[in-house]
Amino acid sequence: MREYADRILMHTAVRGSQVDRNKTPISPVLGIVIAAGLAYSFATSTRSVLAEAPNESPTKERLIRLEEVHEHNRTADTYWVFRGDSVYDITDWVPNHPGGEVILRAVGGSLEPYWNIFTIHQKQDVYDILEQYFIGKIDPRDLVDGKAPTGQVEDPFKSDPKRDAALIQHSTRPCNSETPESELGSYITPIEKFYVRNHLWVPDVHDADSHRLTVELYDGEEVEYTVADLRKKFKEYSITATLQCSGNRRSHMTQASRPTTGLQWGVGAISTATWTGVRLRDVLADAGLDVQDPDEDIKHLKFVGAEAYGASIPIDKAIDRHGDVLLVYSMNGQPLPRDHGFPLRALVPGHVAARSVKWLNKIVVSDEESSSQWQRRDYKCFGPNVGASHPDWDAAPAIQETPVQSAITAVRQVKADRLKDSGLARVYGLEEDSVVLEGYAFAGGGRHIVRVDISPDRGRTWMQAQLQEDGAKMGASGSPDDHRAWAWRQWRAVVPATQISGKFCVKATDDSYNVQPDTFEPTYNFRGNLANAWHRVLVSRDDKPVEGQLGK
Amino acid sequence: MREYADRILMHTAVRGSQVDRNKTPISPVLGIVIAAGLAYSFATSTRSVLAEAPNESPTKERLIRLEEVHEHNRTADTYWVFRGDSVYDITDWVPNHPGGEVILRAVGGSLEPYWNIFTIHQKQDVYDILEQYFIGKIDPRDLVDGKAPTGQVEDPFKSDPKRDAALIQHSTRPCNSETPESELGSYITPIEKFYVRNHLWVPDVHDADSHRLTVELYDGEEVEYTVADLRKKFKEYSITATLQCSGNRRSHMTQASRPTTGLQWGVGAISTATWTGVRLRDVLADAGLDVQDPDEDIKHLKFVGAEAYGASIPIDKAIDRHGDVLLVYSMNGQPLPRDHGFPLRALVPGHVAARSVKWLNKIVVSDEESSSQWQRRDYKCFGPNVGASHPDWDAAPAIQETPVQSAITAVRQVKADRLKDSGLARVYGLEEDSVVLEGYAFAGGGRHIVRVDISPDRGRTWMQAQLQEDGAKMGASGSPDDHRAWAWRQWRAVVPATQISGKFCVKATDDSYNVQPDTFEPTYNFRGNLANAWHRVLVSRDDKPVEGQLGK
Repeated sequence: MREYADRILMHTAVRGSQVDRNKTPISPVLGIVIAAGLAYSFATSTRSVLAEAPNESPTKERLIRLEEVHEHNRTADTYWVFRGDSVYDITDWVPNHPGGEVILRAVGGSLEPYWNIFTIHQKQDVYDILEQYFIGKIDPRDLVDGKAPTGQVEDPFKSDPKRDAALIQHSTRPCNSETPESELGSYITPIEKFYVRNHLWVPDVHDADSHRLTVELYDGEEVEYTVADLRKKFKEYSITATLQCSGNRRSHMTQASRPTTGLQWGVGAISTATWTGVRLRDVLADAGLDVQDPDEDIKHLKFVGAEAYGASIPIDKAIDRHGDVLLVYSMNGQPLPRDHGFPLRALVPGHVAARSVKWLNKIVVSDEESSSQWQRRDYKCFGPNVGASHPDWDAAPAIQETPVQSAITAVRQVKADRLKDSGLARVYGLEEDSVVLEGYAFAGGGRHIVRVDISPDRGRTWMQAQLQEDGAKMGASGSPDDHRAWAWRQWRAVVPATQISGKFCVKATDDSYNVQPDTFEPTYNFRGNLANAWHRVLVSRDDKPVEGQLGK
Repeated sequence: MREYADRILMHTAVRGSQVDRNKTPISPVLGIVIAAGLAYSFATSTRSVLAEAPNESPTKERLIRLEEVHEHNRTADTYWVFRGDSVYDITDWVPNHPGGEVILRAVGGSLEPYWNIFTIHQKQDVYDILEQYFIGKIDPRDLVDGKAPTGQVEDPFKSDPKRDAALIQHSTRPCNSETPESELGSYITPIEKFYVRNHLWVPDVHDADSHRLTVELYDGEEVEYTVADLRKKFKEYSITATLQCSGNRRSHMTQASRPTTGLQWGVGAISTATWTGVRLRDVLADAGLDVQDPDEDIKHLKFVGAEAYGASIPIDKAIDRHGDVLLVYSMNGQPLPRDHGFPLRALVPGHVAARSVKWLNKIVVSDEESSSQWQRRDYKCFGPNVGASHPDWDAAPAIQETPVQSAITAVRQVKADRLKDSGLARVYGLEEDSVVLEGYAFAGGGRHIVRVDISPDRGRTWMQAQLQEDGAKMGASGSPDDHRAWAWRQWRAVVPATQISGKFCVKATDDSYNVQPDTFEPTYNFRGNLANAWHRVLVSRDDKPVEGQLGK
């Protein structure tokens, strides 16, 4: 069990039947939807897993009536839970809970139905933490068949929205679906084709205008704004920005190197939209933060979502007048859709999408990072030699800005006669059978893409792809700044079929002249984050279908 | 001649006898010291090269007395020069001169002595430009033996300072010398061991306090400060920052890939100092620039040095309150040495050193980049397929922030018994014959180094080097900001000799998780700029000397 728990601790998600390099088959018991960041098993029964629990204290315990546990719910000053027939006062643990305040769903009752949803907890490390808060046993008078009744909990995913059938689904609870290649050629991704990366369920907010955002200043003072307040009080900005999951192209790393934990995204965990909202900087200034010269102890800005997801960004980014961090209520001119954060989300351009917290209801000015697992664990990279079993999580910084990336999203063989018909022959001066390649390139931190290099012969020779128009400039009406590149550049290359020899490669260069690494193994990390080695695709010379998948 | 001129245009500098892939031997005629950026031949005679000049106009020309030419000197409204017996009014060319205002040295007289110093001009492209400004011939009454007397010019390098003998000299006129490996282990590079990268001579400024800096605002208004004014009027800051030439490790690219133009630096075109001065932002604000919200047409800040070197940085960097751009008058607690910009230089941390203009005497707030060749030509990177003959210079942006870099600077075999004696056995838990490696890692843009990976077996397996203490935090007393990493991190690794198989490799990762490319060829650029593929060094298992050079 210990070994199994350790593997769950790593949020193992693999395609097929292998969990790690030991090739232990994954247990089928939990019937799992495993997601990067959290492993879920939404079991409809509340089947006990107590047989695996640690031995309980042999000393004489305090007996506690179930009714008293129920009183220590989220409205109380102290929070109690029970597991089996043991009762715990977890008040002191709540602020340290890696998953944030979602833990308050369970207080006043049994942990078990929740741990059957959030199966990540079913491991010795968590049992050990829990035992520190043991305060007594359920009074035997309240036991039924020798067990405390765990009750039922509502399926938090039951009100999730329907998704477009064209999305490539990696998990449903939570929803994680990537944009299909056919939609990645659009500069602005249509809303319903925008990739969905949820860590939990979609909160069910009914009234956008009355949704409240609480800003907690460094001295603890809180200022509240409804979404209606934000719209009314602050200048509105629109920014075209690309969001990219840290797991984009993870499947490429897995295929080229070794198994990685997390969802096996292809090239489509990335999309672009025009986002409209108000500047975080302006809201913070209004709430009372000195955005010109904040207290030097202030280092981070935390975001909390309504579903209890949490993350943070450096305060410098939050208040940078060219940082363009927005509180967004509109996407591509439409009200923000539920999957993308309705009614309010953060938009942290240039940073990994995990910092653009959705369903935003709290902002905290702080001297420390968010304590969530999404800040302190999942979104980090270690060396290729660091295994998943016991990494020193604190040794690596949380991913914020992302490295330069590119991918091939379309490969089409075009016969000479069709080339002429399409006008491409004239544009490119080609009269022979050719291959048309298309894709995107994107760098974090607002860095521009300065060049996309394409090789038709596995990296032996190179040529430059044609960068397509920078749609962000057209789309970002009212953008506070056009110095930074917050959105991808799409590119196209037309290559004579005779030049093709082996795999096509693409690599991009950003304006710090950072480049993508040649291969995956030297940047392998067990979480499979930031997989940005050259994208290689096998293309046949004739018009046979492309060999090798672009996506998954 | 045309072919030769083209090669000079590319500022060709190669070791040995090969100029380019055509293997044409370099002409010995000019007895050359060729430097990246400018090719010089300081000939003591004023030998004419007019045999190569274009045909002169066959039409009847205006005859001009030599005295009249002399009157059109740098104090006049219009600038005339002569070459052979042709006279040119170059007034309109001066602002477009890639080498900046150094051209004013020649006005009122003959170009020839200067073109014998700055031999880059001896090519058809330049002759063609000059002919556009032809206005007449020297009156035959002023010719001596059929030629106009060219006069003598003073050797501008004659007052250059003496340099430390330990520096590795790449050229003397101008001085370009790298820091020896033995000095790269020092966190703060001693002043006399700090690498020297001069593009021209060292200006001879005698009185530091009375040296004037002119700040030209966007409306053309000028404000002057003496260095004494700067010291008196503005708050003083000290910052520990690493400067790195864009050519650092160029020789590695050349060896691994193909010939590159420019000085063939090893690992030592990089050094670190603690710089003291005033913030550019504060000076600009005092001069009248709205540094909170400058006119949106303002995009760049130009620097001009007393020797006429020029470069620019984006205005955002210049006014960023965390950008830490300083006007420096002190280095490691000493007055700025002559080779490093006495009495005043710019320090643009996180950017390529070519932007930290020395002997600073003018700053210009502008809507465009510096027009100098060092901004618009030399310091750029093109694709591996782009040849040196006719690149589209405007297609690549000027290098500003630099990509992540690392190098091995020391390799020592240590026998087990010496390991014990040194205490390293205890520190590293090693009791066998081992190899100790040391080096540096550095990223541009203020990005921190988060990890240095070392491979003892040519990249097959990896381990993490130990990052040495971040000396910048100790050194940067009074630093306005400690969020950005402006200085290198040094590292050390101790590896059992038995693990060694093939070349040692090192690569670093910055906090945007950008990494160095695996190999050189895919980032080859004919200028050999930003050579940052993994550094590979062949180390023998026993205590034989290291095979393969670290430096050149």
